Amino acid sequence: MRSSVSFLLRLVLITLVLATTVPARASDSLPSWKDGPAKQSIVDFVLRVTSPAGPDFVPEPERIAVFDNDGTLWAEQPAYFQVTFALDRIKALAPEHPEWKETQPFKAVLEADTKTLLAGGEHALLEVMMASHAGMTTEEFEQIVSDWLAASKHPKTGRPYTEMVYQPMLELLAYLRGNGFKTYIVSGGGIEFMRPWVEKVYGIPPEQVIGSSIKTKVELRDGKPVLVRLPEVNFIDDKAGKPIGIHQHIGRRPIAAFGNSDGDLQMLQWTAAAPGARFCLIVHHTDAEREWAYDRQSSIGHLDKALDEANQRGWTIVSMKDDWKRVFSFELP
Amino acid sequence: MRSSVSFLLRLVLITLVLATTVPARASDSLPSWKDGPAKQSIVDFVLRVTSPAGPDFVPEPERIAVFDNDGTLWAEQPAYFQVTFALDRIKALAPEHPEWKETQPFKAVLEADTKTLLAGGEHALLEVMMASHAGMTTEEFEQIVSDWLAASKHPKTGRPYTEMVYQPMLELLAYLRGNGFKTYIVSGGGIEFMRPWVEKVYGIPPEQVIGSSIKTKVELRDGKPVLVRLPEVNFIDDKAGKPIGIHQHIGRRPIAAFGNSDGDLQMLQWTAAAPGARFCLIVHHTDAEREWAYDRQSSIGHLDKALDEANQRGWTIVSMKDDWKRVFSFELP
Repeated sequence: MRSSVSFLLRLVLITLVLATTVPARASDSLPSWKDGPAKQSIVDFVLRVTSPAGPDFVPEPERIAVFDNDGTLWAEQPAYFQVTFALDRIKALAPEHPEWKETQPFKAVLEADTKTLLAGGEHALLEVMMASHAGMTTEEFEQIVSDWLAASKHPKTGRPYTEMVYQPMLELLAYLRGNGFKTYIVSGGGIEFMRPWVEKVYGIPPEQVIGSSIKTKVELRDGKPVLVRLPEVNFIDDKAGKPIGIHQHIGRRPIAAFGNSDGDLQMLQWTAAAPGARFCLIVHHTDAEREWAYDRQSSIGHLDKALDEANQRGWTIVSMKDDWKRVFSFELP
Repeated sequence: MRSSVSFLLRLVLITLVLATTVPARASDSLPSWKDGPAKQSIVDFVLRVTSPAGPDFVPEPERIAVFDNDGTLWAEQPAYFQVTFALDRIKALAPEHPEWKETQPFKAVLEADTKTLLAGGEHALLEVMMASHAGMTTEEFEQIVSDWLAASKHPKTGRPYTEMVYQPMLELLAYLRGNGFKTYIVSGGGIEFMRPWVEKVYGIPPEQVIGSSIKTKVELRDGKPVLVRLPEVNFIDDKAGKPIGIHQHIGRRPIAAFGNSDGDLQMLQWTAAAPGARFCLIVHHTDAEREWAYDRQSSIGHLDKALDEANQRGWTIVSMKDDWKRVFSFELP
């Protein structure tokens, strides 16, 4: 009896200690990050902008942090997951489109003829994206994405795609939010492809997702308005599109930005260019064993100019291999 | 000494009573609303969606409320304030554009020739809007708007435009936020024209503003990226544009919508069409003495179809004259 009381007392004490130290001392909030310059730079920045008496204090409403998604929060190999979704969707829709058997680029998709598909270039990819992403209501598309995610597995790990997220980045998102930051996704991926699952997986609500989009129109069905997705590009949230998308959605400049490729460079530059304390970080894919290793030569997640600029300007570069104890949460800690 | 202690005690008690009753009993939060069906419908709705044990409970993240701006949160007579801003801006820029003296529609603006200006129709207005709203960086435009608001007065009341806001609506915004709602502006007006002042005036941060916009592009100036405003329409957030803008920015459907004209009808329909408790309200301009009286015949704030539909569907119709004790905060309470 005495020992169980003592155990309870210890539990209460530990809880109290954790509750009071987590916001002030950051190290416990980032358990999957190895101690080192990358982790230290994050903690230092957060302390600078949250210390009320310090010269770099930033009021809470202005603590905006923006995160790329593919390759920054979740994996992007061997193909962007949304492209896999599109190809799967074409196969699922093929019975309704017998003409696809003889029409490119659909013929190539159905025959898994990657060479012909890639030879079609951007135009072929756009056709595949529109055929798979348009023509239904926004609510129907949300259901299609959710169903696909529930049924699909990553070809290498056999895990659901929503488990292919980086544990250290999940901790970072929570750590920033715990320090009064508002966390946004700013992705070249489709805004509607992300919204159905990011709240559950990242704790980021749909209104804090910025992404590429197609146009929609209002239609009445059974007397009720619905939004129908049209096969027409509305906005491409990549490269110079990222600062434009950020300004359009948020209307103030982020103080911290996180990316992994040249597609994120303008977002990082835009964040860094304002006066005051600013933080820019690049996730460098250096871990061929636990994840993948790629940068300057890769077509997916191509990281070349942004790596040079990060080095020149002293932005934080995270080596997945050296700075992270764990990559995915399903690995043993 | 004794009486001052007793006074302090009373103060503490009053504070405690207020602190505990304000969220539960709404009447104290809406002091500028007369008791009656309109006020009651608001309070009833909020109680329904915030009662955890009730059948209509809505979790906090889904408590999205959308407000039109012109004619709903601030006045819109004798002309939309943003149009007055555009005309003033043309006059201010005229010395740099000597050719405007002989070019329509600018000649008409400079000569205050309203008849010729209106005869030019939408095209003329678009030219005036682009000449006054494009060609500068987003930061420069923000400063131009702030400077204009600081220097300008409403022609009828002599008050700054930012005081031409409806006191009962300010109370309503605060009341909803106090009950866990996230309040958004969804306006046909320019998103960049609103963002510089709405946080201070309405308590709505820039990222919760949806509006019409022009395109921007990233440019390097002195080695730093800026966003330059282009004379090209990006999005018109009016009529069917409102549900589209809401979906694009928020990604979930509002549970409450507030408007005053036919331009808001699709937003109200979109809000009403989803299952669960929903609230739609129309501000009806019925007070020629304290504000203006207009509806079906007015070109500004034209309210015809939406009034019919509000009557048919039992949406709340607020008569400014009969339901509001005060219209503007500068009136004596």
